Amino acid sequence: MIVDIINKKRKKEELTTRELETLFQGYQEGKVKDYQMSAFLMAICCQGMSEEETLDLTDIFLNSGKKLDLSDLKMKTVDKHSTGGVGDKTTLILGPIVASCHIPMVKMSGRGLGYTGGTIDKLESIPGFKIELTEKEIKAQAKAVGLIVTSQSEELVPLDKKVYALRDVTATTESIPLIASSIMSKKIASGADKIIIDIKIGTGALIKTEEEAEELSDLMIKIGEKYGSEVKTCFSNMDHPLGRTIGNKLEVIEAMAVLQNKEKGELRDHCLNLAAELIAMAKEESLEQAKKEAEEALTSGKAYQKFEEWIKAQHGDLTKLKITSKQYAIKATTSGTLTNIDGNALAKIALQLGAGRTTKGEKIDYNAGIALAKTIGSTVKENDILALLYTNKDISQLNLQNVFEIE
Amino acid sequence: MIVDIINKKRKKEELTTRELETLFQGYQEGKVKDYQMSAFLMAICCQGMSEEETLDLTDIFLNSGKKLDLSDLKMKTVDKHSTGGVGDKTTLILGPIVASCHIPMVKMSGRGLGYTGGTIDKLESIPGFKIELTEKEIKAQAKAVGLIVTSQSEELVPLDKKVYALRDVTATTESIPLIASSIMSKKIASGADKIIIDIKIGTGALIKTEEEAEELSDLMIKIGEKYGSEVKTCFSNMDHPLGRTIGNKLEVIEAMAVLQNKEKGELRDHCLNLAAELIAMAKEESLEQAKKEAEEALTSGKAYQKFEEWIKAQHGDLTKLKITSKQYAIKATTSGTLTNIDGNALAKIALQLGAGRTTKGEKIDYNAGIALAKTIGSTVKENDILALLYTNKDISQLNLQNVFEIE
Repeated sequence: MIVDIINKKRKKEELTTRELETLFQGYQEGKVKDYQMSAFLMAICCQGMSEEETLDLTDIFLNSGKKLDLSDLKMKTVDKHSTGGVGDKTTLILGPIVASCHIPMVKMSGRGLGYTGGTIDKLESIPGFKIELTEKEIKAQAKAVGLIVTSQSEELVPLDKKVYALRDVTATTESIPLIASSIMSKKIASGADKIIIDIKIGTGALIKTEEEAEELSDLMIKIGEKYGSEVKTCFSNMDHPLGRTIGNKLEVIEAMAVLQNKEKGELRDHCLNLAAELIAMAKEESLEQAKKEAEEALTSGKAYQKFEEWIKAQHGDLTKLKITSKQYAIKATTSGTLTNIDGNALAKIALQLGAGRTTKGEKIDYNAGIALAKTIGSTVKENDILALLYTNKDISQLNLQNVFEIE
Repeated sequence: MIVDIINKKRKKEELTTRELETLFQGYQEGKVKDYQMSAFLMAICCQGMSEEETLDLTDIFLNSGKKLDLSDLKMKTVDKHSTGGVGDKTTLILGPIVASCHIPMVKMSGRGLGYTGGTIDKLESIPGFKIELTEKEIKAQAKAVGLIVTSQSEELVPLDKKVYALRDVTATTESIPLIASSIMSKKIASGADKIIIDIKIGTGALIKTEEEAEELSDLMIKIGEKYGSEVKTCFSNMDHPLGRTIGNKLEVIEAMAVLQNKEKGELRDHCLNLAAELIAMAKEESLEQAKKEAEEALTSGKAYQKFEEWIKAQHGDLTKLKITSKQYAIKATTSGTLTNIDGNALAKIALQLGAGRTTKGEKIDYNAGIALAKTIGSTVKENDILALLYTNKDISQLNLQNVFEIE
């Protein structure tokens, strides 16, 4: 029976709701084995799933656990998701902007299992920051501060968690329908009314082409519609890092600099754009008007105030946020124009410096990371500092060739 | 690293010898997990393998264990393989014909895990028959009798065994390159010089179309060439059963009847054709001449004598071969022409009667089975007996509808 369903997908046939339930609920209950689920997931990666199947799967994920019910708060909340990028600290900036415009954001986030830390890891690098909140605490903070970021509750979509862990070790992550149902089931379960999805496109990303991004976008919007959540998507490139730092504490510090109006450029613009989309959706106003409000929140310092209020509410102590590791300067070996910075290569280096984890539960060095000193397009002279590495590890074996392209 | 190789196949890229070794040898050593191998096998099913990859995989299978070295016998041996059919007792007839023409056949065979018993199960239904022979015993019998059928040695291609068990429960059996490398590695390891492969085509078979059969045939011939074994293939239909019995003892008794010239028809013709191919290859003579020799061996009784000699050599006692179960007659409910007998449906019934096994190690009732009383094309009157069922099980729940088509 189980084998027959797997076989049907192998032959590129569409599965019924009942068949998908047999496979996925059976997996949650342990009746379907890891080796059967991984074969099935690979069949999905190779043969695809219809829109109907993807909606069914999202529903199965959702029903595998509890939902965060914010209805008694009588407020509409927003959420943001990024499909993953190097140096992406958007949430730390976007959240305070939106919340300071009186739009509550309740976000459940994950730890990074990849090259660099996830949003939760970044926040935990702030001494004292508490990431595990009860439903009661979440609701109280939503009312009082309008901004919460917590770790993904074990009770929400546990099946997605189990399936994702398997996908990670079986090369079955790159499937549009699987990505759509995984992300959307978590967003719907955490109760957001308006959602912005930042789809990263690039050779090192899950999504390789604009075509795939369009497909993913369509699916997520349709899933949102089914559950009464408005979804917008935006596409951005991830071949180079977002902002000028990679590494947990470094990224928090950079986010603070943006909120304090000390930084201009791509990261700031990106956060303002995403914030405007959320504000426009939540207030049902024009994107132009929303952009003005976002910009005003940032430049006036209101957003930074909200950031401080939020971090304090979750017991974080910003006065203790200091980088304590050793620093090493990476210098240019030639003169010219800096034409590219390879984000993927840089992420791998950050991992070697201690900023990420390769196995579940591995300890991260919050101080470790990379701060870029030059942006793409700038003129570089031989011996100019290109980047600073922060680590307490031995860096003699690091290979920094091909990370910086100078022409 | 392992994930990267699986991912490469997911993307339909060709793998290097080293990459295939990493995956399959890693699996043999337990470094690659079941769930990774099953995802990889599914990627192969969906994305295919090149000829080069298939040759590589066969080599990896071969090198995973020992080979049966018959070179000191100074004789060329032949072998036959069938991709599986309902009521297929060809080996029991073909072996004696070929061996009585002085062409030694050393065959390692498997137990059936499917609807009905395998060749080994059929032989074990003969009281006393010994299926496990040492290499020394195999060689002695090859010299003395020229015919041996033993169970697959644990030492030969153990990796194929491990992979096959996984394919069986993950819907990854239907892949031409995987079928080719699995079959051929076993044939090469058991030392055959000339091999005939009977490829069954049909909706219920592993191979669905003539096109797939051609592809499989080409691959197996090429693998044979690489190891100095001559391979011929023949295609036959498996939508209806071969011969008139299904079930272990029943099939041995039917094979004996053919060898005693008491039966004509498709089964006899099929065995003679396969025998002729092997004789022609082994003696390097025309197929026409080989056909004459095969026919003569059968009609003269030489083949039956060889059968008795062979069974005795492996301690089987044919005088004790008797069906002891209850019999039930299946009668026609209408008159007309018998236009079809559904082999697959019949096989499932045989399994319910006790003739096969669904899990490894399950006990078979050697007496159970089905004997057809009418052949396709014959005229049938209402209440004519269509078949006899042999079983000690309760048959009140059996559904025999749609097995026999009478028009």
